[in-house]
Amino acid sequence: MDTWLPTLITETPQKGYELALLLSRKAVGMIQPDENIRKMLRPGYSSDADSLTMASQVVAINFQIVAAANNYWIEK
Amino acid sequence: MDTWLPTLITETPQKGYELALLLSRKAVGMIQPDENIRKMLRPGYSSDADSLTMASQVVAINFQIVAAANNYWIEK
Amino acid sequence: MDTWLPTLITETPQKGYELALLLSRKAVGMIQPDENIRKMLRPGYSSDADSLTMASQVVAINFQIVAAANNYWIEK
Amino acid sequence: MDTWLPTLITETPQKGYELALLLSRKAVGMIQPDENIRKMLRPGYSSDADSLTMASQVVAINFQIVAAANNYWIEK
Amino acid sequence: MDTWLPTLITETPQKGYELALLLSRKAVGMIQPDENIRKMLRPGYSSDADSLTMASQVVAINFQIVAAANNYWIEK
Amino acid sequence: MDTWLPTLITETPQKGYELALLLSRKAVGMIQPDENIRKMLRPGYSSDADSLTMASQVVAINFQIVAAANNYWIEK
Repeated sequence: MDTWLPTLITETPQKGYELALLLSRKAVGMIQPDENIRKMLRPGYSSDADSLTMASQVVAINFQIVAAANNYWIEK
Repeated sequence: MDTWLPTLITETPQKGYELALLLSRKAVGMIQPDENIRKMLRPGYSSDADSLTMASQVVAINFQIVAAANNYWIEK
Repeated sequence: MDTWLPTLITETPQKGYELALLLSRKAVGMIQPDENIRKMLRPGYSSDADSLTMASQVVAINFQIVAAANNYWIEK
Repeated sequence: MDTWLPTLITETPQKGYELALLLSRKAVGMIQPDENIRKMLRPGYSSDADSLTMASQVVAINFQIVAAANNYWIEK
Repeated sequence: MDTWLPTLITETPQKGYELALLLSRKAVGMIQPDENIRKMLRPGYSSDADSLTMASQVVAINFQIVAAANNYWIEK
Repeated sequence: MDTWLPTLITETPQKGYELALLLSRKAVGMIQPDENIRKMLRPGYSSDADSLTMASQVVAINFQIVAAANNYWIEK
């Protein structure tokens, strides 16, 4: 299996936020591994406001993890 | 790419709250990058009470992160 | 802009709970700044049990923040 | 105003759990202060499985706060 | 009242997970004390995928509490 | 009963993420033990975008636990 998550440490908060987005997408990919189905779902999904809000919530929860792992980038 | 999140540190709790709002909006923008679609969604979305509650929940989760990063602004 | 959140510190847990409620309402106000629309939404919203539960969840998440900021009012 | 939350400290985990339930109910009461409306909502609400699950989630979030405040009752 | 939660400490992570499940069910029982209504709800509820996901989320939140209480069973 | 969760410690963040996925699935299995019903639910569930988002949120919450247990794999 590919290594897609070698570390939770990022250089900046912004890169941490991007990692949080990656984590969120990865879960979807692990639950529904069929890329064709996922592609089919995306247009409807990303045009519905509540769906977007729900997705942004998952990003926020993952960002909690990444931010804590990086001690909120305070030393930097 | 633009730097939009150089730090999680803010001067005051209120500025931290505004950053939490920005984080929430940013996720939506990263998931749905098409600004036209987002603008189209906004009126309906922000006139539905449950949608507003869901969005305010994402802000709350992001505020948890920002508040922890700032040690709850206790020293200040 | 008005200062509406000078501190997360409150004298008692109960005042902290009220602050959590204020934080929850503030997010809604920042996302939907039009007070007339918000007033229109309120009756329906606060008469639907699931909407109330969702709103109480946002209060709970905000109370986590306020309670942690106050070290759970343990010294008092 | 009545004091209904003098402290987050409880003697036992079980009493802490009951306090979490009280906190959850209190938010609902503060958002919808009209007891008659709340009573009207209760039968439908507590007979719907998803509504019950959502409500139990709010209890869980509040229990996180109470448990942390009591240091998980470890010393006792 | 019966003592059903004497402690959050468990011997193993797995027993902690079972306690998280118990906590989730207990909230439902405290909100809807009528066992007959709960039994009536169960078949429909546990055959709906989203309902199951929602319920598993409550278990996850409760497991956060139990895991933290046990310091993640690290010493063992 | 089988031991399926001997520890929360994993070698890498990625293995921790997989454990979070296992935890999420385990809760569903404990709430609905009938494998036939679960298999029947899966196709519909994993083809609905909001269902996938909800499921990915449970994974995120479980990953918070696993990541904290492993101190975010910082020493490694």
